[in-house]
Amino acid sequence: MNASQNKTYHNADKVLVAVDCIIFGFDPGKEELQLLVIKRDFEPEKGKWSLMGGFMKTNETIEEAARRVLQTLTGLSNLYMEHLQPYGKVDRDPVERTISIPYWALINIGDHDKELIKQYSASWVDLSKKPALIFDHDEMVRQAVDALRLKVSLKPIGFELLPEKFTMRQLLKLHEEIFAEKLDKRNFTKKMNSYGFLERLNEKDKESSRKGSYLYRFNRKKYQQKSGNWIKFG
Amino acid sequence: MNASQNKTYHNADKVLVAVDCIIFGFDPGKEELQLLVIKRDFEPEKGKWSLMGGFMKTNETIEEAARRVLQTLTGLSNLYMEHLQPYGKVDRDPVERTISIPYWALINIGDHDKELIKQYSASWVDLSKKPALIFDHDEMVRQAVDALRLKVSLKPIGFELLPEKFTMRQLLKLHEEIFAEKLDKRNFTKKMNSYGFLERLNEKDKESSRKGSYLYRFNRKKYQQKSGNWIKFG
Repeated sequence: MNASQNKTYHNADKVLVAVDCIIFGFDPGKEELQLLVIKRDFEPEKGKWSLMGGFMKTNETIEEAARRVLQTLTGLSNLYMEHLQPYGKVDRDPVERTISIPYWALINIGDHDKELIKQYSASWVDLSKKPALIFDHDEMVRQAVDALRLKVSLKPIGFELLPEKFTMRQLLKLHEEIFAEKLDKRNFTKKMNSYGFLERLNEKDKESSRKGSYLYRFNRKKYQQKSGNWIKFG
Repeated sequence: MNASQNKTYHNADKVLVAVDCIIFGFDPGKEELQLLVIKRDFEPEKGKWSLMGGFMKTNETIEEAARRVLQTLTGLSNLYMEHLQPYGKVDRDPVERTISIPYWALINIGDHDKELIKQYSASWVDLSKKPALIFDHDEMVRQAVDALRLKVSLKPIGFELLPEKFTMRQLLKLHEEIFAEKLDKRNFTKKMNSYGFLERLNEKDKESSRKGSYLYRFNRKKYQQKSGNWIKFG
C-alpha cells in the first residue's frame, strides 16, 4: 500500500486464513487438564490427530471464524477465548499457502455437546500425554499453555474450566495441572480464600470422601469489587 | 479443517494479508518521538496520510513481508520490530478483504535512507501532533504506542531510537516522549545509572550548552550480564 505497490491490489497474492482452536477442558473426575483434538478424516495427514480448525470466510472477522469453529464442535457460543500470534511459515500447510491465527479456549467439560464431538471424531486427551499433532499444531499447543499459565497468574479465568460448584481439591488439582507442578494444599487454600471471591456453600460433595467436601463457587461480583487484591499466582 | 470442512480447501475464501508498519523514530534535535507516515498516491483515500504497508506474498513469511516493506522505505534491514494482533474487520479495507498484521519498528533516525523516504512521499511527523490516518491505522498506532511503553518498561529497547552516543538529556527526553509525561531529571539519572549498562564517555556534546554535556553509550554486554537488575521503569 505504498507508492510502488499501488497496482498490486488486484495482482497481490491471496492466501487462506485458518483459525485453529486449542480447546482446554478439565475433567474433575480424572483431575486432568485435557485438550480437545480431532482425528483428521481427509488428506493430507488423514488419520492423524489435529486441532479443530476452519477457514475464515470473507464475510466474517477472524474472531467470528474462531467462534463459529468452536460452536460447530462444542455447541457452545460463549466460550472464553484468546488468540495467539499468527503462524505464517510458508510451507506450514502442504496443500495451500495458509496463515493461521490460533485461538485457545476454555470449556467447562460438563457443558459441551457430546454428540457433536462424536460426529467430528473428536476426543478429549490428557494434555500431558497428548498424541503428536499435525503441521505446527504442537507448537500452537505449547504457546497456548504458556498463554494460559500467564493469564491464570493474572486473572481468575481458571474458573471457566470448572463446574459452577467445585471442591477446594478440584481447584487445587486444576492449578497443579495448569502449572504442571505440585502445590502445597495449605498455602493454596489460604491464598485462594484470601482473595475474597471464593464463596463456600452450605453444600457438600459426598462423592469425594465419607465426610464430604464443602463446595465452593466463584463470585464474579466480589472479584470485580476486589480485583485489586488479585496477586500474581503460580 | 474438520470433517465437514474438508472439501473447502479449494473453495475456501482467499484474502489479502497486509503488513502495516508503525515506524517510530526520535529526533534528538527537536526532542520529539516521531512517526514515519506516507502520503497515499492512489485510490482509495488518495492524498491522505497512511502507514507504510504492503501485501504478503505467498512465498514469504509474514515477518519477511514486514522486513521487506521496512527495508523498501528505510533502506535498513535489521530494525527492531514486533507485531501487534491481527486486524480483521470485514470492511477495514474498502477495496478488497484484507487482514493486516501490523508491525511496529524502532529506527535511529540518523541511519535511514533519506532519498528513499522522499521517493515514497514519506514524512516524519511529531507523534503527538500526527495527522489522522486512513482505515484503522490510527488504532494501530495507539496499540503500537501501548506496546512500546510496555516493552520499554521491561527491556532497554529505547536505545534503538538513539544515536550510538547520546546525552543524558536526550535519554530523558526520549522517555518523556514515549510515556508522554514529565520525568524528574535527578531521579531519572540516578535510576539509569543504577542499572550499570550506561557507559559515560570521555567526550562531550558541545552543541547543547557552553559547558557541554557528557556523552553516554549503551553497553549491551553489560546489560546482558546484569539484566536481572533491570526493573520496571515508567
